[in-house]
Amino acid sequence: MTIFAKILRGEIPCHRVYEDEHVLAFLDIGPLSDGHLLVIPKEAKAHIHELSDDSAAAIGRVLPRLARAVMAVTGATAYNILQNNGAAAHQAVMHVHFHIIPKLGSAGLGVGWNAGSLDAARAAELVKSMQAALSR
Amino acid sequence: MTIFAKILRGEIPCHRVYEDEHVLAFLDIGPLSDGHLLVIPKEAKAHIHELSDDSAAAIGRVLPRLARAVMAVTGATAYNILQNNGAAAHQAVMHVHFHIIPKLGSAGLGVGWNAGSLDAARAAELVKSMQAALSR
Repeated sequence: MTIFAKILRGEIPCHRVYEDEHVLAFLDIGPLSDGHLLVIPKEAKAHIHELSDDSAAAIGRVLPRLARAVMAVTGATAYNILQNNGAAAHQAVMHVHFHIIPKLGSAGLGVGWNAGSLDAARAAELVKSMQAALSR
Repeated sequence: MTIFAKILRGEIPCHRVYEDEHVLAFLDIGPLSDGHLLVIPKEAKAHIHELSDDSAAAIGRVLPRLARAVMAVTGATAYNILQNNGAAAHQAVMHVHFHIIPKLGSAGLGVGWNAGSLDAARAAELVKSMQAALSR
């Protein structure tokens, strides 16, 4: 069982900010910046591709309002929302979680952006195969 | 008008992967890795804190299924979902967008994680003021 599952069961305390039928939001105890918030589904899945549509929609629905609260309280005007899947993508706890991370001066998420360019032939291939995957 | 608004109006082409009443998904033309996907609301807002609950929920709802398509097509087993708000947080186009970025070897999102620790007194203060902000 993950630490987030234990938090959901009340076996480990958290700094709870928001809760509804599908979602819990609480402060990250290892914050990247002041007000760093975690938003998790009550559904126990490791990765977002495993999550039910309804859980994922419930999280999406509360992101604007939680972001407004984080901004109001921290004074942040910029912030990142990040959701990592897999250890190679920096996921540490294997229960789906969205980070809301205020950018306050140099504090916050470090973003490395090594952009390439999209090859037209590969793009056509990707679109075709993604559309096929979506229709399965 | 942003480039994404022009894409939504059909004035600029895109590599369209998915569309529904509220959401459009298409390939990023400056990909961090193969299959890098953008998911945007049709509602024209710059930042997620300005987005309607319904638009935000509609995006949340399709993230699991789009992530599965990206994984199926690219073979990625790890990926990041990132949504930036504000130039200081690395937002380049001022229309809400979620990145789905496959982590493929060294290609993908660079994540800088300079974590601090949460002070107990500050945590109590943050929880209280965020709950107050949420109830307004």
